[in-house]
Amino acid sequence: MIDDSIRPQLGIIGGLGPLASADFYFKLTRITQAFRDNEHVPAVILSVPQLPDRTEAILAGHDGPLAPLKAAVSTLNALGVACVAMPCNTAHHWYDQLAANSRAEIIHIGDAVVAETRRSLERGRVAVLATQGTLVSGFYQDRMSAAGFELCLPANTEFQACVDSAISLVKAGSIVDAAVETERALDIAQATGADAALLGCTELSVVAASLNDVNGLLVIDSNAALARACLTRLGFGTQEARGLPTVSRPPGHDWPMRGSLAVLA
Amino acid sequence: MIDDSIRPQLGIIGGLGPLASADFYFKLTRITQAFRDNEHVPAVILSVPQLPDRTEAILAGHDGPLAPLKAAVSTLNALGVACVAMPCNTAHHWYDQLAANSRAEIIHIGDAVVAETRRSLERGRVAVLATQGTLVSGFYQDRMSAAGFELCLPANTEFQACVDSAISLVKAGSIVDAAVETERALDIAQATGADAALLGCTELSVVAASLNDVNGLLVIDSNAALARACLTRLGFGTQEARGLPTVSRPPGHDWPMRGSLAVLA
Repeated sequence: MIDDSIRPQLGIIGGLGPLASADFYFKLTRITQAFRDNEHVPAVILSVPQLPDRTEAILAGHDGPLAPLKAAVSTLNALGVACVAMPCNTAHHWYDQLAANSRAEIIHIGDAVVAETRRSLERGRVAVLATQGTLVSGFYQDRMSAAGFELCLPANTEFQACVDSAISLVKAGSIVDAAVETERALDIAQATGADAALLGCTELSVVAASLNDVNGLLVIDSNAALARACLTRLGFGTQEARGLPTVSRPPGHDWPMRGSLAVLA
Repeated sequence: MIDDSIRPQLGIIGGLGPLASADFYFKLTRITQAFRDNEHVPAVILSVPQLPDRTEAILAGHDGPLAPLKAAVSTLNALGVACVAMPCNTAHHWYDQLAANSRAEIIHIGDAVVAETRRSLERGRVAVLATQGTLVSGFYQDRMSAAGFELCLPANTEFQACVDSAISLVKAGSIVDAAVETERALDIAQATGADAALLGCTELSVVAASLNDVNGLLVIDSNAALARACLTRLGFGTQEARGLPTVSRPPGHDWPMRGSLAVLA
């Protein structure tokens, strides 16, 4: 089915959304310890932005995205990959069904995030910035608790509103505005006592390098975590992803009261 | 072979090199007029960094990369794509043999660049920053001349040395250093009388958004040109790619004599 000279080792289900996948591909490349093309991992990205919305399906209690996700896993297996990655947190709601239908190991983004968090933090309170679908799915709550971290889910309704807004803004291509909304959510998380904050939606990973000062809060990027986990699993050397690209904001575009939570009410 | 629910429209031969392909995927997404995931083009990127070096093959007069490139085209065709793009200028040396073996149209990066140049320039002198392989292949000289542009190839040996160095630096992950070398080449091109400069190697596209002031020189990005051509061919609306990510350089990291060509000798 595929010639050995071009066989991919890593299969990626992308397009959920497309900017998040481009960010994943970029970070996968930056995190690889490589100086020449042929030191990088052969890969295939199947970018399927046409899939039904994952959060809508979870909240409505249907499995619309499952069949096309299974088809994507099947296509990647047919291309001979050794591992599969999904740089979309919400899609992991269907992880068990997908893994049961895949010869290739599907690397769970939740496991990758726990490993990434452990690199910087022994224990503490972790806020999760994620879609409502991911939160309902609950795999971060399960994994973080099992790993000994305390979950910190701000009750403030503005927190989730900022997260949802940031995600939509990235999907609409407004990265700078999304960074501002993300910073607001991080401020609220910190005021609620979080030691660390997980960008648990890969749209938020797109803005990770563009965030202004986060007041010492540890920010964990689920896309970078997944990229590192894939490379490690496949035996590639990894490095810190230095010099990640940022999108600069026009002067005066900052959230005006950064650090001053009193005005958020 | 592939389920209709996940069929890609655009096939991309990537990994030549990987950062250049990630840049292409990012620009493809940014240039698409879209506000939601499902307004983006379904695509598949076959990232084949394991291919033999293209410039080495052309300079040595052998066709080592042709067989795996044909295999990649064949795999993308089997996945049902309507068009194929290669975000690697040098690989277009084998365009005719690949196009002859593809049901799907392969969109030539040279045609895309001519169309992109025409958007800003009627006529004038265009410098080509490309690999030695691309220059020996000659498709830019042919296409630019046929389109009424004058080629400006600086005789200064430092020009090609800067271009080659910038390309290697991107492949080694040193984007900031690559931007400095690219700016040096652009300075030399401008001093030689160029009105425009083509980043005719997609590694150079990676640094395009990170270039400092280019003194009014029109800079054409072959990756962005190819992305726009693909979207147009497939009927997707396009927009200017605003807010492209840049890699910031540490203070004092500038080429020290920027704009002062006298010191380049």
